[in-house]
Amino acid sequence: MTTKTSDSVAAERIRRAAVEAFAESGYGGTSTREITKRLGMSATAMYPHYRSKEELLFTISLEGHQSALVALQSADDPTAGHLERLRSVVAAFTLWQAEQRQLARVVQYELNALSPAHYKAIAAIRRDTTDVITAIVEGGKKSGDFTIGKPDDVVLAISSLCVDVCRWFPSTSHRDPEILAQTYADIAQKLVG
Amino acid sequence: MTTKTSDSVAAERIRRAAVEAFAESGYGGTSTREITKRLGMSATAMYPHYRSKEELLFTISLEGHQSALVALQSADDPTAGHLERLRSVVAAFTLWQAEQRQLARVVQYELNALSPAHYKAIAAIRRDTTDVITAIVEGGKKSGDFTIGKPDDVVLAISSLCVDVCRWFPSTSHRDPEILAQTYADIAQKLVG
Repeated sequence: MTTKTSDSVAAERIRRAAVEAFAESGYGGTSTREITKRLGMSATAMYPHYRSKEELLFTISLEGHQSALVALQSADDPTAGHLERLRSVVAAFTLWQAEQRQLARVVQYELNALSPAHYKAIAAIRRDTTDVITAIVEGGKKSGDFTIGKPDDVVLAISSLCVDVCRWFPSTSHRDPEILAQTYADIAQKLVG
Repeated sequence: MTTKTSDSVAAERIRRAAVEAFAESGYGGTSTREITKRLGMSATAMYPHYRSKEELLFTISLEGHQSALVALQSADDPTAGHLERLRSVVAAFTLWQAEQRQLARVVQYELNALSPAHYKAIAAIRRDTTDVITAIVEGGKKSGDFTIGKPDDVVLAISSLCVDVCRWFPSTSHRDPEILAQTYADIAQKLVG
């Protein structure tokens, strides 16, 4: 266990306040002053940690995307069968989007606000995340476990379904992330059956 | 054909500029001054048409949601078979989201910025839109045309897939709205097969 310095604790508090502010008012509708105000800090207190609002968004986006990627990779047991792997990865991705929906919305909907260099770094993690699903779908097609057309279209549909959870969750009919995760594993299974 | 008054033409220009501005900077990140500036109008020129930024967003949201609903209803031929109806409605919804993606993003992602009364009015149109898909899915289950579990979960997955198109379209592998519409009709067919 690593001990957090007071410096990293302050930076984490700033990131958390920023996620809340961005989720409420959008990146464009939030000033750095409004973020520090939530923490009772002066407007200049952010700069030792983040030199700009964009750098703050990038750090949040990097952390969010890496966390989703790790969730998928940890759920994938490459020694298991393709169907079991697909179900497990889809459930993990759905769970992440439902539980982290505020963070997920910020990192999904504010990509255009990143600088070109930062966007490129995030796009690489997004590709790695999609690749986890692609490997399973292509493997399942090759082995004959999955009966599908173009693997890319199946991967697109599965990724899109999971990512969109952060937009609408919770709803009248779905309030439990775990139940939704199993429902989405069933839907993914249907898509490859 | 109705003749547009200069008044309604001005109002339409304001709405179009607002959609562009909201899509770029978010509702929270756009002032009414920035919208009128795009049109070379004074900041007060908006008020005879829209009394507030929220009223402008509501009108855009109302128009956008009604347009999507009409697209779905027009695509649905209740005398056709369930599978044909589902394919046709999914293709129409996908096409609408791909072609109107800027408008679609604004009306989907800025729902929280609406006043409670305005939100209620929009929620009713959203329910009507979902109902078009629900009627087909439930009809297909009842007739035995569709082999599915809970109809609500299938409707959720289909709606979510279509709505999410406005977030990512176009991509490297999908640039043609018509081809995507057919791909999504195939995916919906798989979900009920």
